[in-house]
Amino acid sequence: MTEFSRRQLLTTAVAAGATTALTPLVTSTSRAAAPPATAQAPGFYRYKVGDFQITVVTDGAATFPLPDNWVQNHSKAEVQKVLAEAHQPAETVTVPFTPIVINTGQKLVLIDTGYGPEMHVKTKGRVGHLPANLAAAGIDPKSIDTVIISHMHQDHVFGLRTAEGDLAFPNAEIMVPALEWAYWTSDAEMSKLPEGYTKSVYPGIRKTFVGLENKVTKYEWGKELVSGITTVATPGHTPGHTSFVVASGSAKILVQSDVTNIPQVFLRNPTWQVVYDVDPLKATETRKKFYDMASADKFMVQGYHFPFPSAGYVEKRGEDYRLMPIAWNPVL
Amino acid sequence: MTEFSRRQLLTTAVAAGATTALTPLVTSTSRAAAPPATAQAPGFYRYKVGDFQITVVTDGAATFPLPDNWVQNHSKAEVQKVLAEAHQPAETVTVPFTPIVINTGQKLVLIDTGYGPEMHVKTKGRVGHLPANLAAAGIDPKSIDTVIISHMHQDHVFGLRTAEGDLAFPNAEIMVPALEWAYWTSDAEMSKLPEGYTKSVYPGIRKTFVGLENKVTKYEWGKELVSGITTVATPGHTPGHTSFVVASGSAKILVQSDVTNIPQVFLRNPTWQVVYDVDPLKATETRKKFYDMASADKFMVQGYHFPFPSAGYVEKRGEDYRLMPIAWNPVL
Repeated sequence: MTEFSRRQLLTTAVAAGATTALTPLVTSTSRAAAPPATAQAPGFYRYKVGDFQITVVTDGAATFPLPDNWVQNHSKAEVQKVLAEAHQPAETVTVPFTPIVINTGQKLVLIDTGYGPEMHVKTKGRVGHLPANLAAAGIDPKSIDTVIISHMHQDHVFGLRTAEGDLAFPNAEIMVPALEWAYWTSDAEMSKLPEGYTKSVYPGIRKTFVGLENKVTKYEWGKELVSGITTVATPGHTPGHTSFVVASGSAKILVQSDVTNIPQVFLRNPTWQVVYDVDPLKATETRKKFYDMASADKFMVQGYHFPFPSAGYVEKRGEDYRLMPIAWNPVL
Repeated sequence: MTEFSRRQLLTTAVAAGATTALTPLVTSTSRAAAPPATAQAPGFYRYKVGDFQITVVTDGAATFPLPDNWVQNHSKAEVQKVLAEAHQPAETVTVPFTPIVINTGQKLVLIDTGYGPEMHVKTKGRVGHLPANLAAAGIDPKSIDTVIISHMHQDHVFGLRTAEGDLAFPNAEIMVPALEWAYWTSDAEMSKLPEGYTKSVYPGIRKTFVGLENKVTKYEWGKELVSGITTVATPGHTPGHTSFVVASGSAKILVQSDVTNIPQVFLRNPTWQVVYDVDPLKATETRKKFYDMASADKFMVQGYHFPFPSAGYVEKRGEDYRLMPIAWNPVL
């Protein structure tokens, strides 16, 4: 046999799968089998933007049964079809969470903080890995100068606190979008919430910020928060939802935060409204503008819910988009 | 301002890039800047195939000036256009090298061995990282039971030797394709070689195997080498080039070896002939059959020259293909 054929391949594959008890072709002295490893590789990845060093640090990923209404304006069956096209299971969704650290040479800046220790326990260790992965990357939480919050959803802010309720980044200035602060601290806004995701999560969000009312810095859109890190208005997902341009020299990237949830579903279908969007029509409008620009200008986009290391380029195809992940650089 | 505009974004981005000396919006007590990290994250990644555990281990990536004839049947300008579409630099090519370890529960199997210590030095540390990354993954080279070589090109076999010339995996059976062995050890075949890549590399390849003539196991296509690992004939890149089905229970993947070089160029353009292909027309034929099957049957494909972690699904689009990388799983 000098060529493989599809039939041959499928036959041998099935045979191989079915016959683990068969004698292998070659029998060598059998060695003690190595036990399978129980831990994934440390979840960080580094790249440069001009003179800045970015360290992408995963907080983990949550896998949960696909809710009937996960996409507000499309059926579960339609979502399942898209998941299948992306080679994902049909009955569950997996959403990654990905803060980044930016070393500007002058400041060490963390954007978003992951799910924190309480959810680490509640999810049996699926999320809440930011502290461990920061440690693996050699980044001391005490050395973080600035924590920038993109928006106040729980997966972005719970990591501000340790298990004891202390500040996880004790020496950092904490910066939140002014509009976001106004929204989540407004009893009037919260009282208007319909049943659903936002109503269920807001007490925990408020609790995170108790005692920080006069400590956090409220920031505006279109401003440079730290030299080289500029805020971009991307409302809709939440009222004060913010993205960022990170620029050093002539190099720049976009940090999108939650302009979309997982790209396999929502970049491909930019009009689809994930259930977490507070103002889904505005979020859709933001999405299209943001990705039209990212694709036209070939910005690299860092996405909180993109698969780790959560960075890629956006390609426009007709009315939808597609993420081309960056090629991993194994050596700095 | 409640919305971003493209003009606003570009303006602030440019301003941010040009004005690192500007006073930031918020000035907090300046802390000592953390030094930039000097090392990338350890380069391994784990996933399961049925009961098997795969550990993908990068050997590094080589970046070199784009040769005029890198693609035998297309111009440098055409290659540069494709690289640009893939958001890669136009004047260089980056090729990653990615062995895998398969723990079947009974055997610890390494497929391909990377560039080894000599090339590690010659490339100033761009390649030859397999030993360090195996160590990071907790895998002792002495515990490897079987080394399977897909084909005998230098980036797959040089890692068989330590810097001292000893066997890098001293307790492992070494298995090579019988046709591949016959080709590289044939003075008649080598004497027929035209000037070029193969002629330049064969002395080093032969040197690697000096003293192993009676020690290596020569294997055939369509055979199960180790329970669950079956060889698949994929000739063309080299005469004995081999791929693998790895199957456990009902789960199976394809380990393609070098059916293509980097997917950004050669999956998208399956008729393009990389300069390393010994029989480019046969390689093209193999490629089309292989990817037609992989796409139709939705096999996950592990690729030696795919960007780390070097696994994905192949989508067929008309006459060409596209790689959809797997979504990184941050927690086992």
